[in-house]
Amino acid sequence: MADIRFEVAGIGNAIVDVIAEAGDGFLAENGIAKGGMTLIDEARANALYAAMPPAIEVSGGSCGNTIAGVAALGGRGAYFGKVRNDQLGEVFTHDIRSLGVSFETAQATEGPATARCLILVTPDAQRSMSTYLGACAGLGPDDIDEDVIAASAITYMEGYLWDPEGAKQAFLKAAAAAHRAGRKVSLSLSDSFCVDRHRDDFLRLVRDEVDILFANESEILSLYQTQDFDEALALARKDCSWAALTRSEAGSMIIADGEVHKVAAVRPERLLDTTGAGDLYAAGVLYGIAKGFDPVTSGKLGSLAASEAISHFGPRPQTSLKTLAETAGLL
Amino acid sequence: MADIRFEVAGIGNAIVDVIAEAGDGFLAENGIAKGGMTLIDEARANALYAAMPPAIEVSGGSCGNTIAGVAALGGRGAYFGKVRNDQLGEVFTHDIRSLGVSFETAQATEGPATARCLILVTPDAQRSMSTYLGACAGLGPDDIDEDVIAASAITYMEGYLWDPEGAKQAFLKAAAAAHRAGRKVSLSLSDSFCVDRHRDDFLRLVRDEVDILFANESEILSLYQTQDFDEALALARKDCSWAALTRSEAGSMIIADGEVHKVAAVRPERLLDTTGAGDLYAAGVLYGIAKGFDPVTSGKLGSLAASEAISHFGPRPQTSLKTLAETAGLL
Repeated sequence: MADIRFEVAGIGNAIVDVIAEAGDGFLAENGIAKGGMTLIDEARANALYAAMPPAIEVSGGSCGNTIAGVAALGGRGAYFGKVRNDQLGEVFTHDIRSLGVSFETAQATEGPATARCLILVTPDAQRSMSTYLGACAGLGPDDIDEDVIAASAITYMEGYLWDPEGAKQAFLKAAAAAHRAGRKVSLSLSDSFCVDRHRDDFLRLVRDEVDILFANESEILSLYQTQDFDEALALARKDCSWAALTRSEAGSMIIADGEVHKVAAVRPERLLDTTGAGDLYAAGVLYGIAKGFDPVTSGKLGSLAASEAISHFGPRPQTSLKTLAETAGLL
Repeated sequence: MADIRFEVAGIGNAIVDVIAEAGDGFLAENGIAKGGMTLIDEARANALYAAMPPAIEVSGGSCGNTIAGVAALGGRGAYFGKVRNDQLGEVFTHDIRSLGVSFETAQATEGPATARCLILVTPDAQRSMSTYLGACAGLGPDDIDEDVIAASAITYMEGYLWDPEGAKQAFLKAAAAAHRAGRKVSLSLSDSFCVDRHRDDFLRLVRDEVDILFANESEILSLYQTQDFDEALALARKDCSWAALTRSEAGSMIIADGEVHKVAAVRPERLLDTTGAGDLYAAGVLYGIAKGFDPVTSGKLGSLAASEAISHFGPRPQTSLKTLAETAGLL
């Protein structure tokens, strides 16, 4: 087996977040589903942006945030995702590379602009997302470097990849390459609406391809079409060797080789913006598994990373998670 | 005299800030003058950006921040500044218009990109700025709408306009138009290095053209080439009908028609990033003067707005200054 050069390789929709604060009235007036992620086209993106208050721009994308989190924990990360050669594409590229992450996916030189996610944060710290996928539609299997996948302990992919057709093919190619090399494949279900769009495919993936599953409560309920969390947990335990199921401030349940472990959430210094909480939780758990830590320690790393993410605006760590984890006695 | 449609019209370099946290070591390694603003070319901007940690992008520009502050206080603002028709130009345009500010300067359709200011914030909350002026070089007298100037109680201009040649001509045209209409002209000295570059011109402006001067301690000392603040204050009192001289946490001195008033600083909830403090102070004072408030009330509005700016990352208000000022009994 080749040496491991990366704890986690990620494949995702490469997105720049455009974040503004707004009241519930703004969501209602503009027909935005609270707490969810809605795909929008360019015309809608332009109209919604024009209506939005002043915003900040910051690199995002669910899987990109997770890989940034792995790097902030001291891990080695690689990322695959498609931006255009425009200013926001440069922003995305700069931000992930400056963390030491390997990001070599060729930029699109024509076609739609770099993807944007318009995020409205309400006073209750919830985020409501409207995503224009733009250049992400250009990601395909040719963008996947199998040598990088084979040199990564875990290949982590977001369910959102199932939205653009080419990205789905990239996912399947990477999963096959990872397993051929004896590595693990991990999937995040991303969003309950995303699960609704792709339930049959996701069920097959979870049963046949995925070694480590990430889902929050509404996503796992949607996957198994049940209202009963314990039932969903039992089904996930049957389908996956590892699964991490999150329940916001109630913490998470980690299934590892048939055993179920309960992990507490970490209360943040302050609760400002939940964007990135699930992504950073995944970063902690993946880093722990890749390093061979036990399930509870891995889960605690996830809880710690998530608590950092929700204490500020923007989805990526603003401080060294490695230092935080060392202070907490987890590293 | 025409009706007043705007409390303040501003003319400035239209810039998007790229803000990252860094230690003093990073400043030293990269030859960045701490606390100041250095002009850089595109090659240096690209090299410095590549070396920078992950960043957030947010609209900035000294005068743009001030006009945003006037709008956040409930005032009507107009802004003149040059961006390119690129993604960061759209960001700048969106952010200032979404505050209700009139911003109609034609975007450049060719030539350099929208200006960027690379800002490193050190743990002591100081900001060190490296500015690539890009499209700002294209601002000229043709961009100034004299009807807007004539309809504005105060026309406010940043000293930084003296750096690109065309902007200087725009400044002089606007000052003349304001005075012809019986309006006031205000200048910020911007930065002590900027004063060093243009001292003779600034002295002439202060004596002949400017009705309301803004300067911090190092800028006013540089203007009058003295080490003695009281001497500088006395000279400013002779040269200007109004002047607001700021001394960070020691507050400010406001000269109004020969009388000197001392105004205390407002202690912020927390001190995170001093970017925009001077710009927002000017917003409060200008709004107060435009509304006919007394010098001390105007100064207190400035102190309050500055304290909001330094309590978060980014140079522009993140909350309604009007509500803050009402709560403080100033509006």
